[in-house]
Amino acid sequence: MQGLMMDRPLLTTEILKHAVRNYRNTEIVTRTVEGPIHRYAIGDAARRIRKLANALTAMGVKQGDRIGVIGWNTYRQFELYYAVGGIGAVLHTINPRLGIENASFVINHAEDDYLFYDTTFAPLVAMMRPNLKSVKGYYVLTDAEHAGEAGDGADNYEDLIAGAPEAFDWPEFDENTAVALCYTSGTTGDPKGVLYSHRALVLQSFATVLPTAMSMREGDTMLPVVPMFHVNAWNTPYSCLMIGVKQVFPGPRLDGEGLYEMLHSEKVTYSAGVPTVWLGLLQYLEETGKELPHLKRGLCGGSALPEALIRGFAKRGVEMQQGWGMTELSPVGTVNVLPPHIEELPLDDRMPYQLKAGRALPFVDMRLVDAQGKILPHDGEHEGHLQVRGPWIIGEYYKAEKSTLTADGWFDTGDVAIIDEGGFLQITDRSKDVIKTGGEWVSSIEIENAALMHNGVLQAGVIGVEHPKWQERPLLVVVKRPGQEVTGEGIKAFLKGKLDKIAIPDAVEFIDHMPIGATGKVLKTELRKMFKDYKLAE
Amino acid sequence: MQGLMMDRPLLTTEILKHAVRNYRNTEIVTRTVEGPIHRYAIGDAARRIRKLANALTAMGVKQGDRIGVIGWNTYRQFELYYAVGGIGAVLHTINPRLGIENASFVINHAEDDYLFYDTTFAPLVAMMRPNLKSVKGYYVLTDAEHAGEAGDGADNYEDLIAGAPEAFDWPEFDENTAVALCYTSGTTGDPKGVLYSHRALVLQSFATVLPTAMSMREGDTMLPVVPMFHVNAWNTPYSCLMIGVKQVFPGPRLDGEGLYEMLHSEKVTYSAGVPTVWLGLLQYLEETGKELPHLKRGLCGGSALPEALIRGFAKRGVEMQQGWGMTELSPVGTVNVLPPHIEELPLDDRMPYQLKAGRALPFVDMRLVDAQGKILPHDGEHEGHLQVRGPWIIGEYYKAEKSTLTADGWFDTGDVAIIDEGGFLQITDRSKDVIKTGGEWVSSIEIENAALMHNGVLQAGVIGVEHPKWQERPLLVVVKRPGQEVTGEGIKAFLKGKLDKIAIPDAVEFIDHMPIGATGKVLKTELRKMFKDYKLAE
Repeated sequence: MQGLMMDRPLLTTEILKHAVRNYRNTEIVTRTVEGPIHRYAIGDAARRIRKLANALTAMGVKQGDRIGVIGWNTYRQFELYYAVGGIGAVLHTINPRLGIENASFVINHAEDDYLFYDTTFAPLVAMMRPNLKSVKGYYVLTDAEHAGEAGDGADNYEDLIAGAPEAFDWPEFDENTAVALCYTSGTTGDPKGVLYSHRALVLQSFATVLPTAMSMREGDTMLPVVPMFHVNAWNTPYSCLMIGVKQVFPGPRLDGEGLYEMLHSEKVTYSAGVPTVWLGLLQYLEETGKELPHLKRGLCGGSALPEALIRGFAKRGVEMQQGWGMTELSPVGTVNVLPPHIEELPLDDRMPYQLKAGRALPFVDMRLVDAQGKILPHDGEHEGHLQVRGPWIIGEYYKAEKSTLTADGWFDTGDVAIIDEGGFLQITDRSKDVIKTGGEWVSSIEIENAALMHNGVLQAGVIGVEHPKWQERPLLVVVKRPGQEVTGEGIKAFLKGKLDKIAIPDAVEFIDHMPIGATGKVLKTELRKMFKDYKLAE
Repeated sequence: MQGLMMDRPLLTTEILKHAVRNYRNTEIVTRTVEGPIHRYAIGDAARRIRKLANALTAMGVKQGDRIGVIGWNTYRQFELYYAVGGIGAVLHTINPRLGIENASFVINHAEDDYLFYDTTFAPLVAMMRPNLKSVKGYYVLTDAEHAGEAGDGADNYEDLIAGAPEAFDWPEFDENTAVALCYTSGTTGDPKGVLYSHRALVLQSFATVLPTAMSMREGDTMLPVVPMFHVNAWNTPYSCLMIGVKQVFPGPRLDGEGLYEMLHSEKVTYSAGVPTVWLGLLQYLEETGKELPHLKRGLCGGSALPEALIRGFAKRGVEMQQGWGMTELSPVGTVNVLPPHIEELPLDDRMPYQLKAGRALPFVDMRLVDAQGKILPHDGEHEGHLQVRGPWIIGEYYKAEKSTLTADGWFDTGDVAIIDEGGFLQITDRSKDVIKTGGEWVSSIEIENAALMHNGVLQAGVIGVEHPKWQERPLLVVVKRPGQEVTGEGIKAFLKGKLDKIAIPDAVEFIDHMPIGATGKVLKTELRKMFKDYKLAE
């Protein structure tokens, strides 16, 4: 028997309309690519979004068409989010760090009709243009005055929307309609496209702002460092609007000083980014002695949150919070909010919990599976391949040639994890990065995090190298902190007692620059190339 | 173009499973109908729910079957919520205050296969039994020891589930499947059935716990006074489980003293009920001088929140929060959470905002329409018929003979309201209770609330009575506060300056008992009968 409720779709446009009705004066602030600070309110944003929707329609953009964008977090990309999705088209957000080859590949694979980009990326676009097969028009995300800087004769965004009418009647359509497309970073093989539906992003927005997750409220100010060009800036462009949270977009300045300026001047209370970003900010605060009295919490995801970051920010009154997700999860799967009886403990006692990735959002179902496909208990001990399912988790990759899911309909995350009896997830490693040694699994991430606690270690990456007896043994690759004296033996001594004996790396090597991928993570594939023929001493 | 995400349904069972995985030790406490306090954890509840699901299946209950329940807020009715919905059947919650005739009507109309009820309602059920056409079996919500008190030879709930297996594999089905059925109170005409879907209740649960709505979090304790036998206790059985909030069920003791005991001993932080309940509690606190140091907030809905209640509880450190909803809205439409710049004002300055019903939940779309069907602006001035739409709003009544919605698909709430530019809703009256006088509308509720500020007024109801010149004029009907001297002229003098001249009632009449309907509201229909031939002086 069917219920008899209204059939109303979960569309992102409804979030925008809700915000206009309830939070029209809430600010959206951007450090522009051009330089100056731009600020306007949600009501103004909505007006420009409607103008953009009219302009796109006039350009002939129809439901299902893909529109590419390569841009920093700014109000203009924010406008594209709502306008493109709102007319039933698909915003393909492109990660500029993919490089020319992969970026060209994804634009061709998505068959983007138009490409919007910041002036910063004009050289990249100029180099790609000869390769791009489907793009009918190019728009620089700036005004006529600054468009010249792009130097490629493209049209500009402000001229495009200038003459468009302010009124637009948003269409209604099935909530399963595609709204956005994002490709994985493609560290192994070609990037793969994840085609998000309105339903998925709306549901995830509800779930991420829960008091058991990001727990934002009106009066908070969110600065997403996590990029709009990849995994929807963790959905903050939608979730913040849903509950009237002020947004601050950092534009192209993601260094410690640049972030500090925006966090401080806009009294940001909550921010979100990957560990490298937080490390850069912490380093800046340490060097300058500056403080961020308004910042209360920082959400950290993308890779494991190092203990050093938690402690460094805790000293400064900022609670670091770990989350876990993937492009294929829209992207959030867990957020770590501690239960009250743990939250009230001293930092040392609650540290084991803060180092975990948190508990699943409602409707994210997680299971652990061993190599034989047997389902393992959630007991804080069994370690297995993490598989997930839920309404904002991928069903299949865009134009996939083979099935994306397991035979019984779960998505295998490629992560190895432990889940405890209270539901707390602990990612121990990527399946392919786990070091298999003497029949046991050693987590490369665990070694990296322990190494990062050493004063002389700025960045750390661990890979397995062949070993005649143990199959594989860990090699720790380190970038030294400038001005610090440090030796491999010193680091190994430091790690003793912090790690199981089996996890102490056999060797430490120093390099000048850590290879970092398009999403800010250490590129293990590059490290493996660099140390391909590495021979462990004895 | 369709998105490529997993097709996973929004079922209430997923909320239960999520709670077991993450909050299995969180308590659920009940003052039982039998007397003693019962306490167990979510993990225990889930085990009994699975046993109940097995028992129902063994009884032959199939997807779509209706199961009736007449019960207080207890852990047993809570178990029925999840077990009946979880197997795809429909829990028909029956309001015992409907009276024999209407209660029999709704059971026959719903064609309930089985009827569960508390011992309290055994006499009601015994009187109805000869009229009930579809019911194949009766179960008293107690154990063998206490079932005898019901005296009707019915089976009992504990024996039913005692032998059932603890393992149950929850079926998956379309999220639009019906999960619960609730009839309106039927103050005018026969009660009408609202058939909720899993999707509607899950979405509303997400929306009601938002930081901009009920804003509960793990560590909070919720005592829902609002009944499970009507409008799903404002969805708290679902929303609390979604985020791990401890629930305290008050059973049959809803008087001031009874509530105080549970609120105090269980350290309840948040409670929800209609104004009459809150008035009873406030009176108890005033009389006894007792305090509730743990209670932080109280959600009040069902009818307008009187200023006297806000002030009375504010003195005791409890923030009263107004909400608005209807059976047809699952039931929550708005919850009043003040924006930070208003919340920080002194009580007198924020009072005008606290007296409003709050802002709409996301995905609840509201509009005001005049008598000619013209859409009115949300400017804090225009007053019109409130119409709503959204995914948890009724599409049509169960077995409806005529359309429930307007021609363009909105539900007319029967309320008259004003909405301001910030989205704040103010219900001025029920359309049918508005007093039309000299071409203007006067709100009966506004007069009642002003009268309730008078020390000598315990309860107040206002109706329009015929007037030769002005068409209608307000009559204020009052139940005196015991031990207070009060006159009609005294009350009228008190109201001057508080109300527009046009709203000062022409007369005040005193009665001993206010007629209160099945959902705790003043029954204007009864007042109109009592004063049918009332002649205003002069």
